[in-house]
Amino acid sequence: MNVVPKGFLFASTEAGFKYSGRDDLGLIYSQTEAVGAGAFTRNIFQAAPVKVAKNILDEKDTLRGIVINAGQANACTGEKGIQDCLKSLYLVTDLFKLSNKSILPASTGVIGDRMDLSRWEKAVLDLKKNLSSQPLCAAKAMMTTDTFPKLSWRSISFKGGQGTIMGIAKGAGMICPNMATMLGFILTDFQIEASVWKDILFRAVEASFNRISIDGDTSTNDCVLGLANGAANIQVDLGDYETIEESLKEVCQELAFYIVQDAEGGTKIIRIKVKGAKNNDQAKAAARTVAHSPLVKTAFFGEEANWGRIVAALGRCGAEFDPDRISVYIGKIPLFVQGNPLEKEFNELLIPILKRREIVVNIDLDQGEGEYDLLTSDLSLDYVRINSEYRS
Amino acid sequence: MNVVPKGFLFASTEAGFKYSGRDDLGLIYSQTEAVGAGAFTRNIFQAAPVKVAKNILDEKDTLRGIVINAGQANACTGEKGIQDCLKSLYLVTDLFKLSNKSILPASTGVIGDRMDLSRWEKAVLDLKKNLSSQPLCAAKAMMTTDTFPKLSWRSISFKGGQGTIMGIAKGAGMICPNMATMLGFILTDFQIEASVWKDILFRAVEASFNRISIDGDTSTNDCVLGLANGAANIQVDLGDYETIEESLKEVCQELAFYIVQDAEGGTKIIRIKVKGAKNNDQAKAAARTVAHSPLVKTAFFGEEANWGRIVAALGRCGAEFDPDRISVYIGKIPLFVQGNPLEKEFNELLIPILKRREIVVNIDLDQGEGEYDLLTSDLSLDYVRINSEYRS
Repeated sequence: MNVVPKGFLFASTEAGFKYSGRDDLGLIYSQTEAVGAGAFTRNIFQAAPVKVAKNILDEKDTLRGIVINAGQANACTGEKGIQDCLKSLYLVTDLFKLSNKSILPASTGVIGDRMDLSRWEKAVLDLKKNLSSQPLCAAKAMMTTDTFPKLSWRSISFKGGQGTIMGIAKGAGMICPNMATMLGFILTDFQIEASVWKDILFRAVEASFNRISIDGDTSTNDCVLGLANGAANIQVDLGDYETIEESLKEVCQELAFYIVQDAEGGTKIIRIKVKGAKNNDQAKAAARTVAHSPLVKTAFFGEEANWGRIVAALGRCGAEFDPDRISVYIGKIPLFVQGNPLEKEFNELLIPILKRREIVVNIDLDQGEGEYDLLTSDLSLDYVRINSEYRS
Repeated sequence: MNVVPKGFLFASTEAGFKYSGRDDLGLIYSQTEAVGAGAFTRNIFQAAPVKVAKNILDEKDTLRGIVINAGQANACTGEKGIQDCLKSLYLVTDLFKLSNKSILPASTGVIGDRMDLSRWEKAVLDLKKNLSSQPLCAAKAMMTTDTFPKLSWRSISFKGGQGTIMGIAKGAGMICPNMATMLGFILTDFQIEASVWKDILFRAVEASFNRISIDGDTSTNDCVLGLANGAANIQVDLGDYETIEESLKEVCQELAFYIVQDAEGGTKIIRIKVKGAKNNDQAKAAARTVAHSPLVKTAFFGEEANWGRIVAALGRCGAEFDPDRISVYIGKIPLFVQGNPLEKEFNELLIPILKRREIVVNIDLDQGEGEYDLLTSDLSLDYVRINSEYRS
């Protein structure tokens, strides 16, 4: 089974930043220079590792790896946080005898805590010792509220040979507000030019990680980083890029799905599909407003098809439409068609649909060609319980 | 919303056969003669209503309805059971002033109990009073261990107009062995010739109700009955039959899915897909053996991907294959490919797949073109608890 792209190694170790009895420091290591790309949180408060990673990617096209720690987010730590981050990277590049700015940082954990560099010093030695071809160690070392490691891959065969795209991710909803960063790392052994790699990664992120929403919150540390090392050593024709991009998108979408599936307290995975909007932006506004509505989300937790709440959310989303022309379906069952609600008699038809774990809401605004869809979860008693009881 | 085919009415009432506080006698009534078709249980012990319905369909092509009771299966009741069934039908035909053998019977309930005809006499009067265009009353009156009524429909527009196919069903696994009949009633207002209707209904049943298996048991009362009354009054061209058959299959498959979803004690809906068998029969044998294996089913309840149990079931299914050439996938994750198992390291990739409610097992025997797939559920603690504690 070709899960891991050639030329990548992985390591993890227990640094003891916050957890004990589990690894919390991970390394993704490319044996040769790899073309880098990144997409970062739009939160105004960007954590030190986000700022540092952006700077490195602005300066350099190729890199050798990514180091990830769980437990200390190194966010809202000011200039000292930046210095800590750079020092932690130096510990890695020094040990592996790499040039400066060869390694990208990513952190997840408690906001405001500074990094414990003495623990880093001891732990990086283990990283070198533990290097292996097994990617799950890195996927597990970055888990916080996650209940399972997230990995997805696609192998693609061209006439020149086979290449692989693999991604690992963490993220489980903004459940514990200090701990719920979304991180994704996408690796491939295809040889891809820097500008192309940045473009296709950006589009894949837009079609996946940017289309999930547990509760509308954005972490200070969210980022997706990509490395393409060319180690598959096959010629990629121009026409092949489309296939590679498609597989990249699938990998990112599978990881994004896992993140919503793992939403702590979540009992449903709900896909909101909007079509017929005046344009894509209005479709996006409509989908996001419905997906973020606590009234809609609690109704799904209660397995109740409250079309009134969906319609009310649409009515305030800013998209232009005629209330008498919109339609809302749950699965194939029409809840509300061109101003007419489902007869009460048929409400029971929704029971088996709403009992499922995965639910699709189809919304047609009947105004134009604009489309957008996203994945969200319900709002459960456990979500409120966890968040109201959480003290970091 | 065009759920109900034209010319059909429905009624239900509380006869008090076994339940109280709910309806347990239902009627499907066609306002005009409808072409009938039926598929029946292959259990050697056929209940009286099954025998009577078969006889009526053998004698007559057109009918006026179906009467269904829940609580008394009228199975293993001998010649007296047949007489009781005929008397109950006479009560209906007499009341509605229909010719003899115009109504088909179906029963579900406790095996061995004779029907309480005095309750029938009182209850049928209500059926006439309660006639309405709302099909869910009939779907609910036949529920036993079901937790929700099951209804599916498709409307199809041809150039001559629109017609509808609607089905209702009951069934929730052979949980309480005396109570778990599978009943399905398919109604349409398309005009379909008797031999065609029998053919397409039979194929739809084969592709749906005959491809679900909760625990391999077959009830004495299982049947699917179809009525086509032509009330949509549109010309159906020869080419349209294909579309009608496709929609009919979808309706039956949706109802069959609901039955597996409602399997009492079931926590998973598992689709077993076999391809690459020497022929379709061998594919069927392979799919059924895996689907019925208690070891496989308990592994899914435990959310464990035990490929050894799947492979062991395949090894005794009778299909010819080379053990070194078969492959088994759960979702897209290869468990066992041409004799090589998934490396242990990757077992954790299966966690999110196995946590889902709906799981697909793909089996490739790599011997030929034979294919078969079916739906089954897992074998849970609740299943055993319910069945071991059940006393009728």
